[in-house]
Amino acid sequence: MTPSQAVTIQFQPIGKRIQVDPQINLLEAARMAGIALTSTCGGEGNCGQCRVQVISGSVSPFTEAEKFLLSEAEQKESYRLACCTRPMSDVCLHIPPDSLDSGQRLQIESVLRPPVADPLVQTIEVQCPPPTLADSRSDWTRLRDEVARRSGSADIFASSAFIQALPPTIRQLNWRVQVLLRKGEVIGLLPLSSKPLGLAVDLGTTKIAAALLELESGRVLATSGAPNPQISYGEDVVSRLVTIQRNPAGGQKMAELVRQGINELLLDLVKRAAAVPEQVAEACIVGNTAMIHLLLGWPVRQLALAPYVAASSEPLEVFAAALDFRLAPGGRVYIPPAIGGYVGSDHVAMILASELDQSERITLGIDIGTNTEISLRIPGKETLMAVSCASGPAFEGAHIRDGMRAASGAIEKVRFTAQEMQITTIDNEPPIGFCGSGILDAVAELYRNGYLLPNGRFDRHKLAQPEAAEPRFVFVPAEQSGNAREIALTQKDINEIQLAKGAIQAGIKILLEVNQIAPEQVEEVIVAGAFGSYLHLPSAIQIGLFPPLPRARYRQVGNAAAVGAQWMLISKQARKRAEEIARRTRYLELTTLPGFNRQFAVAMHFPPLEEKNETLE
Amino acid sequence: MTPSQAVTIQFQPIGKRIQVDPQINLLEAARMAGIALTSTCGGEGNCGQCRVQVISGSVSPFTEAEKFLLSEAEQKESYRLACCTRPMSDVCLHIPPDSLDSGQRLQIESVLRPPVADPLVQTIEVQCPPPTLADSRSDWTRLRDEVARRSGSADIFASSAFIQALPPTIRQLNWRVQVLLRKGEVIGLLPLSSKPLGLAVDLGTTKIAAALLELESGRVLATSGAPNPQISYGEDVVSRLVTIQRNPAGGQKMAELVRQGINELLLDLVKRAAAVPEQVAEACIVGNTAMIHLLLGWPVRQLALAPYVAASSEPLEVFAAALDFRLAPGGRVYIPPAIGGYVGSDHVAMILASELDQSERITLGIDIGTNTEISLRIPGKETLMAVSCASGPAFEGAHIRDGMRAASGAIEKVRFTAQEMQITTIDNEPPIGFCGSGILDAVAELYRNGYLLPNGRFDRHKLAQPEAAEPRFVFVPAEQSGNAREIALTQKDINEIQLAKGAIQAGIKILLEVNQIAPEQVEEVIVAGAFGSYLHLPSAIQIGLFPPLPRARYRQVGNAAAVGAQWMLISKQARKRAEEIARRTRYLELTTLPGFNRQFAVAMHFPPLEEKNETLE
Repeated sequence: MTPSQAVTIQFQPIGKRIQVDPQINLLEAARMAGIALTSTCGGEGNCGQCRVQVISGSVSPFTEAEKFLLSEAEQKESYRLACCTRPMSDVCLHIPPDSLDSGQRLQIESVLRPPVADPLVQTIEVQCPPPTLADSRSDWTRLRDEVARRSGSADIFASSAFIQALPPTIRQLNWRVQVLLRKGEVIGLLPLSSKPLGLAVDLGTTKIAAALLELESGRVLATSGAPNPQISYGEDVVSRLVTIQRNPAGGQKMAELVRQGINELLLDLVKRAAAVPEQVAEACIVGNTAMIHLLLGWPVRQLALAPYVAASSEPLEVFAAALDFRLAPGGRVYIPPAIGGYVGSDHVAMILASELDQSERITLGIDIGTNTEISLRIPGKETLMAVSCASGPAFEGAHIRDGMRAASGAIEKVRFTAQEMQITTIDNEPPIGFCGSGILDAVAELYRNGYLLPNGRFDRHKLAQPEAAEPRFVFVPAEQSGNAREIALTQKDINEIQLAKGAIQAGIKILLEVNQIAPEQVEEVIVAGAFGSYLHLPSAIQIGLFPPLPRARYRQVGNAAAVGAQWMLISKQARKRAEEIARRTRYLELTTLPGFNRQFAVAMHFPPLEEKNETLE
Repeated sequence: MTPSQAVTIQFQPIGKRIQVDPQINLLEAARMAGIALTSTCGGEGNCGQCRVQVISGSVSPFTEAEKFLLSEAEQKESYRLACCTRPMSDVCLHIPPDSLDSGQRLQIESVLRPPVADPLVQTIEVQCPPPTLADSRSDWTRLRDEVARRSGSADIFASSAFIQALPPTIRQLNWRVQVLLRKGEVIGLLPLSSKPLGLAVDLGTTKIAAALLELESGRVLATSGAPNPQISYGEDVVSRLVTIQRNPAGGQKMAELVRQGINELLLDLVKRAAAVPEQVAEACIVGNTAMIHLLLGWPVRQLALAPYVAASSEPLEVFAAALDFRLAPGGRVYIPPAIGGYVGSDHVAMILASELDQSERITLGIDIGTNTEISLRIPGKETLMAVSCASGPAFEGAHIRDGMRAASGAIEKVRFTAQEMQITTIDNEPPIGFCGSGILDAVAELYRNGYLLPNGRFDRHKLAQPEAAEPRFVFVPAEQSGNAREIALTQKDINEIQLAKGAIQAGIKILLEVNQIAPEQVEEVIVAGAFGSYLHLPSAIQIGLFPPLPRARYRQVGNAAAVGAQWMLISKQARKRAEEIARRTRYLELTTLPGFNRQFAVAMHFPPLEEKNETLE
């Protein structure tokens, strides 16, 4: 690698990434990404505060300073001092909360306090006497007797699937094994040297995010993501449900597709962690109600029609093998409870990870995706209330002429100054389209600068081509773009954004009204989801997506649903809390409210411009 | 149907059948079959004692006498007085123990006392309020809340498979259902009018026997049988295991074949009982250890090689869906425990049904099949002891030149008198081959009359064709047989029988010797299995298959393993007893005993002829 070749540094769990010259150290890289790591010594390798954990990628060797300041255990688990470490390739880092500067910590990490790992699956080391003609007990009887003795419990059992794997495995391991034990059930065997792992999945309508964790430490070994392959059956939830209404066999096919997609992520993660699938003792999958139905192959007819009833919203433990997942032979998938309507276990996970349910302030939790869920917490009230908005995939770049996913070359930031239009792309590549945060910025700037009227129509007189059949504003002419095609927002694009923001804005408004809370009474707004974490708050407020509150009341927490899934994977206590959250959260079906359609129509408009809004910074 | 056309009457659970003229009544038919029904009035329709239950087929209408003597409930359940009822078609009858004359009862029924039904699966009637926009609880939450209320238990749960079936079913039943409840788990829904059913299966190496029962009454609705389709992979256990050793994919295929075979029996039974598969709440499958491994897809390598260890011999509850059985959505298959080696749950079932474990006499239990299991009970001793003999399928007509299954035209009885050779075939059809009991008779008669020497060789001088390359004795010349082919026993056939009887004879001998019991000390011999029930005891004693005990000590109990499976299906108590039996029965591996090969070789010989054995009757 030549010194000039840039590398990408990812920061977890914040979810930021940046391209840097490999000559700079990780502390500087973090600063460039806007992440302030604690560093009393100013990067001299003396204070030992800027600890980061290298999850993947290669970095420079340990320095003497690090060998002195980091414990042996820390060194073994790839902890490094950011100021002493240079990237040698693309690198993924985990930033422990302690290493974050307090201001930053307040914003990103204070609401995400990982629980102590107390996994459901325990390990027990046993050694069995091999069978002989004089002692020809069955393999399972032999193992069970030993596990019973070691665990002190007489009621030890196993499934047929585990027994099927037992004879070859226990012989291969020479009768000395680590037993994976789950509520009295033996679900797998490991070599003595292996650690039990878990898979956490956030099953989104558009995207699947997965992480592989060590169950006993809660350490994230690897993360990965992939598009939800059901997308070929419809981009949003409703269109997939309609497909099944027309062709019930489509449901089976969609289940197969998504199971296969998760399996592929699993195999990829396991490979990257140098593990084997049999080590994965358990999975936790969160998702909106429809996605969970489509994963489990449940019927959706009753979910698609009023009164929109789920087959089940209760927590569930499913045999992984029944979903064709290759985990430990008796491994289970934990599906956390859902709240109601389309507000699913992903929102429960988001509430769990952001601790919305325990907030001491009037707090809104907004998880923006193809479906957007919004919850309201009022301190002192036993129940939370949740609504679901069909916001659609426009903020993910879909249904937008020049929209795209957040990838290299996507415009992620747009600012108009008096002199010029500033455009920033991901990885600083030549622009080829807009991702969600870029679209939001672009619309906000067009409106702030008078190109758009409050009703969302272009002011044709201000456009370069006022007479065009479809009015549009060109941000990048073809000759300056990365793919020789003009990048613009059309009138139709603006309308798509109006529909998306209108749905969310109306949802927030109604949720507050029903609870008799005025917008300015909201003391905290937790914004979750990939788009939610990257969006420029002033732009969101400018177009009315979010209420005009002081910026300090907003917290962008990243993919809190995915984090919540990880917590439930590694902690019985977190599952208990999630079940509590589901019980305590009341679902409000927006479409049943008499004023909903009017509110939605009103919310499509942009709010009045205020003079003081000179720039969006 | 013309009056002269004969019909077949089957008697259950004795397992006898007979062809009769439809003009005679069922009491006479029973007498002709050798079954003595109690009848104080001598068939006048006055005493009401000769009650039988019509399981299938049509019979003459109720007489006035029957309407008077049978209760309404009895009439509804097709109880009839045998003396008042004529068959209108082929008929299958169940003979309640009370209706058997005491002598007969002693022999057939006294050891088979069905338990009171106390099935694991219970039913609860519930009515749910249908969902509305104001009450949009999920289907499962709605049902669960109602079941919890009705059952008084808070801990009610369900599997994903049940939830998958729930939305369409509960709407079709209009929210008023009978819930199938199994240890707190809801496993299925039935219309209020339906009764929960169960499937009992005896999975033999050669044959599968299945019965459909009403779980709550224990009533047998229909029975059926089919060849084990794995037979294409080998006729006996060992050859199937060898096939898998050579080609591991064969195991998967064999599992599929036998599951499909059981499924077909199930669908046939359900159809005949005018039921639906979803009514079948549970199944119980018994079989020898290898058959259970091949059903569950477990590896068999460790079972095929010394020290012959099962993957598991513990009782097991398997999701029916995991075996591709179509039962109630959450229905389970109960696999009772096995004893050890190849002595499987079928033998446990046989011990259960024959109550061998509770006998107050020194008792041998012999279950003859392709594998023959033998157990010894010594009163006052805590443990029973069991051995397994690879007797092969000769007594089922296989490996015998003119052998066949027990079907129409099979020679089932052979007697030589001073004047002639008497041959009886099943259904009195022209002979086309030998079934097991016919082969046994034929060999015994050949030996008794000097055609065979004690070492099993033909005395060539006595044969019609003394110089034939392979000596044989012709029982039916081609021109008298039903298929224009001669029916004979060849020297090779005799050797096959010697191997089969030698294996069983040696097993009995060693089992007694190890326990220091002399043959004459055995006070009771329970003979089970299809062949065991039809065989002519004097013939079996003549060739040394069974020890020369007074005939009164023998009891032929029919397919006790199949009956035991039925009991475990309908009774929690029976399962508990079976688990107790498995725990208390010690398995003895014959091949490990130093004297086994010698004993086996000696047992191939026929015992010395005694002068007094004038005829075999």
